[in-house]
Amino acid sequence: MVGTVLELCTLEELAELEENDPAERARWVVSAPDPPGLWQNLAICSMKKTAALVSALNNQPKHKLLASLLQEAFPVLGWCQSYNVTKFKADVIAGLTIASLCIPQSMGYATLAKLEPQYGLYTSVVPPFIYAVMGTSKDMVIGPVAVDSLLLSAMIQKLIIDDSRADLTSYKSLVFTATLFAGIFQAAFGIFRLGFLVDFFSHAASVGFMSGSAIIIGLQQLKGLLGITNFTHKTDIISVMKSVSTGLAHQQWHINNFVLGCSCLTFVLITRLLGTWKKKLFWLPVIAPLLAFIFSTLIVYWTKAYDEGVVIVRQVKTGFNPSSVHLLQFDGPYVTEVAKIGLIVAVVGLTEATAVGRSFASLKGYHLDANKEMVSFGFMNVIGSLTSCYVCAGSLSRTAVNFNAGGETLVSNMVMAVTVLISLQLFTRFLYYTPMAAMASIILSAIPQLIKLTEANHIWKVDKLDFLACIGAFFGVLFLRVEIGLLIAVAISFAKIILVSIQPGVEILGRLPGTCTFCDVAQYPMAMKIPGVLIIRIKSAWLCFANANNIRERIMRWVTEEEEDAEGKIRRTTIKHVILDMSSLMNIDTSGIVSLDELHKNLVSHGAELGIANPRWQVINKLRLANFVGKIGGMVFLTVGEAVDACVL
Amino acid sequence: MVGTVLELCTLEELAELEENDPAERARWVVSAPDPPGLWQNLAICSMKKTAALVSALNNQPKHKLLASLLQEAFPVLGWCQSYNVTKFKADVIAGLTIASLCIPQSMGYATLAKLEPQYGLYTSVVPPFIYAVMGTSKDMVIGPVAVDSLLLSAMIQKLIIDDSRADLTSYKSLVFTATLFAGIFQAAFGIFRLGFLVDFFSHAASVGFMSGSAIIIGLQQLKGLLGITNFTHKTDIISVMKSVSTGLAHQQWHINNFVLGCSCLTFVLITRLLGTWKKKLFWLPVIAPLLAFIFSTLIVYWTKAYDEGVVIVRQVKTGFNPSSVHLLQFDGPYVTEVAKIGLIVAVVGLTEATAVGRSFASLKGYHLDANKEMVSFGFMNVIGSLTSCYVCAGSLSRTAVNFNAGGETLVSNMVMAVTVLISLQLFTRFLYYTPMAAMASIILSAIPQLIKLTEANHIWKVDKLDFLACIGAFFGVLFLRVEIGLLIAVAISFAKIILVSIQPGVEILGRLPGTCTFCDVAQYPMAMKIPGVLIIRIKSAWLCFANANNIRERIMRWVTEEEEDAEGKIRRTTIKHVILDMSSLMNIDTSGIVSLDELHKNLVSHGAELGIANPRWQVINKLRLANFVGKIGGMVFLTVGEAVDACVL
Repeated sequence: MVGTVLELCTLEELAELEENDPAERARWVVSAPDPPGLWQNLAICSMKKTAALVSALNNQPKHKLLASLLQEAFPVLGWCQSYNVTKFKADVIAGLTIASLCIPQSMGYATLAKLEPQYGLYTSVVPPFIYAVMGTSKDMVIGPVAVDSLLLSAMIQKLIIDDSRADLTSYKSLVFTATLFAGIFQAAFGIFRLGFLVDFFSHAASVGFMSGSAIIIGLQQLKGLLGITNFTHKTDIISVMKSVSTGLAHQQWHINNFVLGCSCLTFVLITRLLGTWKKKLFWLPVIAPLLAFIFSTLIVYWTKAYDEGVVIVRQVKTGFNPSSVHLLQFDGPYVTEVAKIGLIVAVVGLTEATAVGRSFASLKGYHLDANKEMVSFGFMNVIGSLTSCYVCAGSLSRTAVNFNAGGETLVSNMVMAVTVLISLQLFTRFLYYTPMAAMASIILSAIPQLIKLTEANHIWKVDKLDFLACIGAFFGVLFLRVEIGLLIAVAISFAKIILVSIQPGVEILGRLPGTCTFCDVAQYPMAMKIPGVLIIRIKSAWLCFANANNIRERIMRWVTEEEEDAEGKIRRTTIKHVILDMSSLMNIDTSGIVSLDELHKNLVSHGAELGIANPRWQVINKLRLANFVGKIGGMVFLTVGEAVDACVL
Repeated sequence: MVGTVLELCTLEELAELEENDPAERARWVVSAPDPPGLWQNLAICSMKKTAALVSALNNQPKHKLLASLLQEAFPVLGWCQSYNVTKFKADVIAGLTIASLCIPQSMGYATLAKLEPQYGLYTSVVPPFIYAVMGTSKDMVIGPVAVDSLLLSAMIQKLIIDDSRADLTSYKSLVFTATLFAGIFQAAFGIFRLGFLVDFFSHAASVGFMSGSAIIIGLQQLKGLLGITNFTHKTDIISVMKSVSTGLAHQQWHINNFVLGCSCLTFVLITRLLGTWKKKLFWLPVIAPLLAFIFSTLIVYWTKAYDEGVVIVRQVKTGFNPSSVHLLQFDGPYVTEVAKIGLIVAVVGLTEATAVGRSFASLKGYHLDANKEMVSFGFMNVIGSLTSCYVCAGSLSRTAVNFNAGGETLVSNMVMAVTVLISLQLFTRFLYYTPMAAMASIILSAIPQLIKLTEANHIWKVDKLDFLACIGAFFGVLFLRVEIGLLIAVAISFAKIILVSIQPGVEILGRLPGTCTFCDVAQYPMAMKIPGVLIIRIKSAWLCFANANNIRERIMRWVTEEEEDAEGKIRRTTIKHVILDMSSLMNIDTSGIVSLDELHKNLVSHGAELGIANPRWQVINKLRLANFVGKIGGMVFLTVGEAVDACVL
């Protein structure tokens, strides 16, 4: 290896190689320029982005500047130039396909959010239009989603029920206000480039949270499926099961609902099987929910089953999205609470949408701009809250259908929105007779894909601590409340960061045979220790107050410990040199420096010498500032190999 | 360098070197044994300690086993064997010296804790005896200390004042109960080897906290110095200053107190100057407080100044430590609150004592066992709480005097305790006339050494975030409450951990001329990039949910960015290989793996290849489990150099 890399050197460098003795290289370490400070770092980061944008704009003629700016804000202006009839045909087919799935799902999710079904349809009209001009994904289908609907209704209902003064009619206005807040937060995240905030809801936590929510959603559908009249507002599994059993025991249900719902569910599931079996029939499971809707509605209408105990939707209103500006409340007693709900829903919605968008973007190989996505979601929810839409997000199931149906661009979203709009105008009268059991069966059929057992199994296999966050979120949602589950997941994730970051650890390095590479002797059993020299690598990225003393004590224990040699005799190891490999140490704080200082003094009193190898930028800078380099007599080296050489020679 | 390290190889290895091609070494990386799991790690850690102890015991004959165990618990049995008359003489002199400082200080700190002065003396009797047989320091002097006294009185007074039902006479019983809890917590920390908990109170936070407390303590002494009768119970600077101004405005003070106090203070400070000036006179500032005490008391007694407005101590009781068992309360309304106070005082006391103990241990070059120290502090406070002692700790000023006076062992502590005991029996009657102003001046004279301006300046110079914790604690103590300051400091410290740990960062590596070492091109401006190969080192120790996406995006930005070359033309960089140097990455979670996966897909769609170099134990294990190694076609290398070779060839 050495030879080949050296071949890259120029001849002059090779001549220099002889002159550049290790002492010269050690000087490189100590005389590195000052690293940028923390704030400078942050400033550089955002400056870079702005500078890149500005230079990109400056390189264009003036008359194109406005166009560039507009295109930056509305990606549609970029891709519409290469739009053609072929693409449009594909988009229309895909749009009609997703519309057929969207109508029953939207109505179902609206009932999950305790709103009348038309609000789900409204939410599938305005936001998709906005996303089509602002979004950076090519596949994402916008509309109401299950988990957000559950989360919103659970939190707002809790707010209202906790307060005896509130009347239940204010529910709707709280929903729209929360949607507005969610939009404002999302837009703010995007504008201030806080996209990373969404990452704080980790993959593992999201798997647990989604699975738990899916089970709760599924159980809540028993209400519709059985036609139970009195049902709990709580979301934990115990309350829900109690409601179900009370409903069953007190005969507050009707068998017809159950038969109707189960028939719909069986139909949808069978078509799904057919779709998996023959790839050509993929459209069958897609339109199955709509077919189930239509047939069950017709059956109820013709047999007048609504007089036989079948619960029907009843309150669907005909017409376009009405304005909901008058419903927004900013002076009520709940403003801060609603803003908090908005924040939670905003983060969960973005997490879901980003995950959906990213996975399809990487399938097609294009880039998704997280910050622009946030801004567009923000706009969708802000404008949505003014036009009777509740919180929207990217739907996984509809996006997958769009992808499979061959949707080329976001025009499929527009086609879907137009279709929904027409249905709102023409067919809602017909939806009056739709049985609630059919709606429940549509939601139920979407549950399995939210419960990610294989994913959970994978997490368990790879990372036990991640699994803890996953299972914490799962049980939190299931047995406590939806938002408590969320809180547990985030808390465990952060506790994990602290635990992993400050876990004090040192490993002993040995030389790999035949190389000048030094590695952990536990990881590479073939690595050999150098007699009389203890080479220690700090396993933490930060030597700080929380681990510095522990690390110091461990090193001293290695130095002073008695080792049994091959003959079983106890002999005191005679370590004369301790080399600290700092290559993984990113930073150090004042407590860490104090500890290193003490380590040095302790070693000197044991007759050993301390040297450090490969300190990183921030570390060497702070050691210089604290005059530590001088204290250890300049024993600073570029690599462990050079440090060993200096000790052994 | 290469030559010299290779000289260490045996001949067989050198022969092997030819055969061990890089592919063979890459196999070493992938086929490393499974790393120990997290819990296994913890178990190994404590097992090792126990095993070491057990084997040490097993190697001894049976009759020595008990002796070993006893010596393990009572270090006095170890050092008393080599004790001799010379050492005893030194210890008696040191003991008498610290007793002369201890008596006035203990009385002062007791008034700071709102207890009668004799309780300070009691606390300087029983705990030093216990520490002498259990402690592992050779220099530490035990007794009441300023900050703990302030903290205890501030928190317990707040508890009582908040509750209107409580009568003020229960104050003393709460103090002793808190002391008992503090002792129990400290002993538990030591027994369960939780010594690292003390480290969570960082150096910087402690500097800020101590300085803030010192200023509050100093201001509170204005009460004694001016003889103000009505004084606030709050500890924030605003309340204290208001009390002082009200006292001055309403003539509730007397000039005689001020004259007396200032004379004492001047005398103590002048002797201190003399002591610094002539090293031989170091005993002068030590006995100065006692002299000031005696003279001021005699003056008050003879001039009957107590009739002229001079406030005197009055309530000093003669006799040995009385039992305080009957004062302990476990059924009152405050048990949990008092336990919490005990915990806080326990941690603060231990932090102080460990800092004092460590600094003198490293001066003399012996080891301080943090866990044994905790057990001994626990015993001191538990037994102390039964014998009318309040929370004790290691006093910095008295330990320094003990060190300077030539104290050899902890016998000096015993001599001090006996001296204080004799004074309690014989001279306390005389202390009846001691003016409060003299006590205040003694406390005031100890303030400057608690305010560590140079240390704060050093922290500011080295680490700005550390300084934030320091200044946060300082202002928290000063303007809010003592324990709030503590909380702020701990919160900032933990926020710092999270911030530093997950800060997403990547650095570009280049080859240092004439070596096969790859370094950050920003830190080492002489390092050169390899054309067509992008070598990136992740700057975090943990590729996790909070930074993985950001790091992925940054890498993709490097790969796709347009670079201006020397002629000012814009050309697209043609990166064909991306090498991720994982040497500083300690761990990865499932989100991190998902991100790496996406990075790989993105790179492939840009026509580039991904390779990883030097993954650590946990990382390679998880990548193997997640089948990532297979996905990137086994592009795993031991070093960056080998990875570059594989790409360039």
